Amino acid sequence: MGAALVTSLSDLPIREDLRGRSPYGAPQIDVPVRLNTNENPYPPSPGLADDLARAVREQAVGLNRYPDRDAVELRARLADYLGHDLSGERVWAANGSNEVIQQILQAFGGPGRTALGFEPSYSMHPILTRGTATEWIAAAREDDFGIDPGKAVAAIEEHRPDVVFLTSPNNPTGTALPMHVIERVVAAAPGMVVVDEAYFEFARTGTPSALTLLPGHPRLIVTRTMSKAFAMAGTRLGYLAAHPAVIEALLLVRLPYHLSSLTQAAALVALAHHAELLGTVDRLRAERDATVAWLRGKGLSAADSDANFVLFGRFPDRRAVWEALLARGVLVRELGPAEWLRVSIGTGEEMAAFRAALEGAVMEGAA
Amino acid sequence: MGAALVTSLSDLPIREDLRGRSPYGAPQIDVPVRLNTNENPYPPSPGLADDLARAVREQAVGLNRYPDRDAVELRARLADYLGHDLSGERVWAANGSNEVIQQILQAFGGPGRTALGFEPSYSMHPILTRGTATEWIAAAREDDFGIDPGKAVAAIEEHRPDVVFLTSPNNPTGTALPMHVIERVVAAAPGMVVVDEAYFEFARTGTPSALTLLPGHPRLIVTRTMSKAFAMAGTRLGYLAAHPAVIEALLLVRLPYHLSSLTQAAALVALAHHAELLGTVDRLRAERDATVAWLRGKGLSAADSDANFVLFGRFPDRRAVWEALLARGVLVRELGPAEWLRVSIGTGEEMAAFRAALEGAVMEGAA
Repeated sequence: MGAALVTSLSDLPIREDLRGRSPYGAPQIDVPVRLNTNENPYPPSPGLADDLARAVREQAVGLNRYPDRDAVELRARLADYLGHDLSGERVWAANGSNEVIQQILQAFGGPGRTALGFEPSYSMHPILTRGTATEWIAAAREDDFGIDPGKAVAAIEEHRPDVVFLTSPNNPTGTALPMHVIERVVAAAPGMVVVDEAYFEFARTGTPSALTLLPGHPRLIVTRTMSKAFAMAGTRLGYLAAHPAVIEALLLVRLPYHLSSLTQAAALVALAHHAELLGTVDRLRAERDATVAWLRGKGLSAADSDANFVLFGRFPDRRAVWEALLARGVLVRELGPAEWLRVSIGTGEEMAAFRAALEGAVMEGAA
Repeated sequence: MGAALVTSLSDLPIREDLRGRSPYGAPQIDVPVRLNTNENPYPPSPGLADDLARAVREQAVGLNRYPDRDAVELRARLADYLGHDLSGERVWAANGSNEVIQQILQAFGGPGRTALGFEPSYSMHPILTRGTATEWIAAAREDDFGIDPGKAVAAIEEHRPDVVFLTSPNNPTGTALPMHVIERVVAAAPGMVVVDEAYFEFARTGTPSALTLLPGHPRLIVTRTMSKAFAMAGTRLGYLAAHPAVIEALLLVRLPYHLSSLTQAAALVALAHHAELLGTVDRLRAERDATVAWLRGKGLSAADSDANFVLFGRFPDRRAVWEALLARGVLVRELGPAEWLRVSIGTGEEMAAFRAALEGAVMEGAA
């Protein structure tokens, strides 16, 4: 077994495509103002926390038993929340939308198959794609971070991907897609189309959801999460809506009992409190719009955003700006297109700290 | 998108190797006596449930934030529990040992790679292997369900597998492996060796753990779970111990924030109460040994077991016996080698119900 010689990762027989790679993830740095992972800054209320503790107390005395493998009640309640005449048999849930998407790729991607997305977009899509031995095809968004439907259809017709990812609102740009773009892509795609709506609840009024396209489109999947607007990032609950046959496909690849009794119970409590949890969305949208206006007022660029973050720039040395903000106790995210940074929308106080830090960074000459 | 024509799973573009398959999992049937999924029949105490509710109440007000992505505290406490001079950097945890094993295969298996196991064994090993596009190679256990070390080494030298699975105590046979067999396999394997010790706490006194082999064997991985002896199946917490470089490899494939704040908190509470939780193990071992003796006394076959279940038979029509037991309110598992059934060890009352049901089934002529 060559024991004595193995001292580091590079000595282990890992998959060749993993060699030299770094783990995904924003730095976990302990700073006063964390605006780097698009969390909702408003914590659940004491009343919700009490209900959650009560629900877990009830579950606890049965924890020696496996959870409901099919999470029947939770899926029914998620369907109720989504509306659009959905029912539990059209909804699926897992530990975060990352696991939901991984399951989609395990069922519909894999060796010899391809998935196509429009970059810049959520960087986990290509990681999950490659992690399931699916080939990733990067198509491009326009300069305004939108998707040109003609070019999108051309890319799909050229590559014939098994899975197409659309992200709306898009991460890290905040861009929502008009319905006609989604419709064109859905019509052209030969395989599955995943519309990742992780940030949908933050979209400006009137923004259409791809959920409205589900009837008559059995190869369309719309994913959502409780990590963002729902303020439940710590619970790890992602979900999707699709044709019941899609759910049947996911049952073939899901790990049995993947969703713990605690997760199911917590998500049910969160859904029962959804009015409270989503009550912060309006404040966050207002803060977002004010942030965009402020940045532009300072002569900076800021992408239009339908999410709870803003992509801003452009900084020839964005790393210097990121560091200057961090030095002032404000952690933003260095990702997306070159020369841009992404700031999550926090509380009013946190955004004031962000503005002060950015002004300081500019005066210092970092920006 | 061919919408109108898609009405069932077979119309969707799923991976070819999934076509015609059924979802994994024991039937979830509501019966008085559930002895089919090797759960610990003794629920956590009210005191533990109170502590769990308190811990969750503390977490709840921070659930808007993502969990510790690296589960640092939990891994340290799991290391303390395992002993063997382990520390948190040598321990990894995920949502059940299924996810742990899936991550191992994502890092060390994949397209063009192989994993070998000795059947009959845990049926998720080949499912997880194929689910990661790894090729499964089935080697055979002996008639007594043990592994012949010479044949094992020969199989490894013939196939040169990237991953070898050993299960000890083995599911569904209950068979523990002697240390010299594990050592021979570890010495011969060109890649990773996974010793699945999900049922280790139930093993008879003196049974060695592969944990003792970890020093000097950086390609050895030992997996455990809190679903069995720990009576925490509903919490979904699997873990492993290995060289720190193995953990680094898993960081490259794990889904970020895969382990929720609730799961981490619940597992920490369970570890704090481990003496209570594991206090049921002796009772279950005694009940298991009594079950083996009773079955043999009735002229039936029963495999020696170091786990919390017993494989028994042999029944030319095992389905008829399974149904006759179910008709009497006792659910056992129809799996493993032909002509055998597996019964989980329940409470004394549940095992009395099992014995009565089996006697009834025999009188009826089903067995």
